[in-house]
Amino acid sequence: MDLVTLDDVRLAAKDLAGVTVRTPLLPCRWDDQLWVKPESLQPVGSFKLRGATHAVARLEPALRARGVVTHSSGNHGQALAYAARVHGVPCTVVIPEGAPAVKVDRVRALGAEIRLVPPADRLAVAEEIAAEQGRTLIPPFDDRRIIAGQGTIGLEVVEDLPDVDVVLVPVGGGGLASGIATAVKALRPTAKVIGVEPELAADARDSLTAGELRVWEPARTYRTSADGLRTSLSELTLAHLLARLDGIVTVTEDEITAATARLVQQTRLVVEPSGAVAAAARMFHAAGLPAGRTVAVVSGGNVDPAVLAAAATRPDVEG
Amino acid sequence: MDLVTLDDVRLAAKDLAGVTVRTPLLPCRWDDQLWVKPESLQPVGSFKLRGATHAVARLEPALRARGVVTHSSGNHGQALAYAARVHGVPCTVVIPEGAPAVKVDRVRALGAEIRLVPPADRLAVAEEIAAEQGRTLIPPFDDRRIIAGQGTIGLEVVEDLPDVDVVLVPVGGGGLASGIATAVKALRPTAKVIGVEPELAADARDSLTAGELRVWEPARTYRTSADGLRTSLSELTLAHLLARLDGIVTVTEDEITAATARLVQQTRLVVEPSGAVAAAARMFHAAGLPAGRTVAVVSGGNVDPAVLAAAATRPDVEG
Repeated sequence: MDLVTLDDVRLAAKDLAGVTVRTPLLPCRWDDQLWVKPESLQPVGSFKLRGATHAVARLEPALRARGVVTHSSGNHGQALAYAARVHGVPCTVVIPEGAPAVKVDRVRALGAEIRLVPPADRLAVAEEIAAEQGRTLIPPFDDRRIIAGQGTIGLEVVEDLPDVDVVLVPVGGGGLASGIATAVKALRPTAKVIGVEPELAADARDSLTAGELRVWEPARTYRTSADGLRTSLSELTLAHLLARLDGIVTVTEDEITAATARLVQQTRLVVEPSGAVAAAARMFHAAGLPAGRTVAVVSGGNVDPAVLAAAATRPDVEG
Repeated sequence: MDLVTLDDVRLAAKDLAGVTVRTPLLPCRWDDQLWVKPESLQPVGSFKLRGATHAVARLEPALRARGVVTHSSGNHGQALAYAARVHGVPCTVVIPEGAPAVKVDRVRALGAEIRLVPPADRLAVAEEIAAEQGRTLIPPFDDRRIIAGQGTIGLEVVEDLPDVDVVLVPVGGGGLASGIATAVKALRPTAKVIGVEPELAADARDSLTAGELRVWEPARTYRTSADGLRTSLSELTLAHLLARLDGIVTVTEDEITAATARLVQQTRLVVEPSGAVAAAARMFHAAGLPAGRTVAVVSGGNVDPAVLAAAATRPDVEG
């Protein structure tokens, strides 16, 4: 399979200027070998804006006027709506009936057209809209341009911390880890890129061990609070991770909750549980990770208000 | 009076590399002409680290070994302790008896020596330590190097947004506003630098109107939730603000609370009430401010957990 290259990532970086935030590395007071990369500070609150922006920017002129469509109601849906608005491209987001009103409102506020459908019909309806209206389907991770866009995080990490030893990356569908591993391993081959996922959604670990896709049923992954990481890999992201990832670790729900509170209280970031798993790995599993200067990617900050309030007031846990 | 110059600020910027975070400008989704500068992301949670770092870095070699001392138990105390530790300089922080244990613990965790004294004796004890032990007293704002250090925020604002029209800056002791106005007015004379303070601690407005220091009694300023802005100006900061500030506005407690919640929920920053006043001015007093591309400085994020929890769950208010 043809994998994304460093040049692809560099091309994506050009499209992001003026749209995404160049996030800094933040040193952590509790661990002098740890920095976090706060993608929660992107305008839509997650790294997804990078891939979406690149994908929309590279649309052929003829396709641009016809617009884009996606079937993610979460961070990717918001990101695509935002990127489409920046580029003046029409956008439809297919959302499952029963999704929280706040998510629907956020996508609508970004000017996207909303299609509410039964959950099982999401992908089919998105494909139908693509076929009938000529809209380009932009999937959340199973796409070379999306992977290249997320990879720009890796470029920035190496630029800001040239002697980085370890990069810890949350793994859901695997687009983020695929992109970051592509950039980091090309620029600094000695650095280790390690994936992190919830113990309750460890399908990527299983897939990497087996060397082929292992899918966990939604009924199983739904137990993790890290709702952005319930997705399974695709063949494309699996191929990238098999070739470029140096390892994968899992974290428990208690560890995710503790890391969320730590980041809120000591790094002063509003983070969602999915965004805290990489920091959790360093806090609770440092012995099982390569040593050295470590960056934990905080992937997003779209958190339920009650979860944030609990994280704000929770006693800090050593780790 | 000899005022701080742009060259002084540029010199300070050299001392900050590798210690402070180069904070980005974050666009605000609710206002396409507004960016925030999140100094809450500095390692000690506030802009104070800039001035403190410059002041410690520029100590004469003979004074370095003797150390530094200050009488602020708040953000400046933490900042000085952090900067002193980075430079291997001994540090004493004089703290009033009765200060919250969490603040004392944070300063101690940074390796500083603590002296607990009756509140009225703070300055006298700090001066005594300076005289007896040869420690250099580093005040929180009434100091040219502190002002120059805080001014580096202005350099970064103009670098990141060269066509900025308005910079909104919280005013407590006035060191932050003095420094930022120095840099911004020198680099971009057409930009307006506007101070913002709580209506319940509007001593800077009174001082600027009178053209001489007006001090509000602590019994009066204690009513504002913006505890970092209860301080009065000094002759030095007043002189800077009279010469370089384009205006000053005040915000109410309700406006501060609403802006804190807005920043937490939509910009995903953990902010303290003092840090939210500039955003509050833009949200609620835009009609009284110059128009155009506006930067609001978010000065800090050391917030009480209960205040943060309330901000996380508060219904958003239009403004």
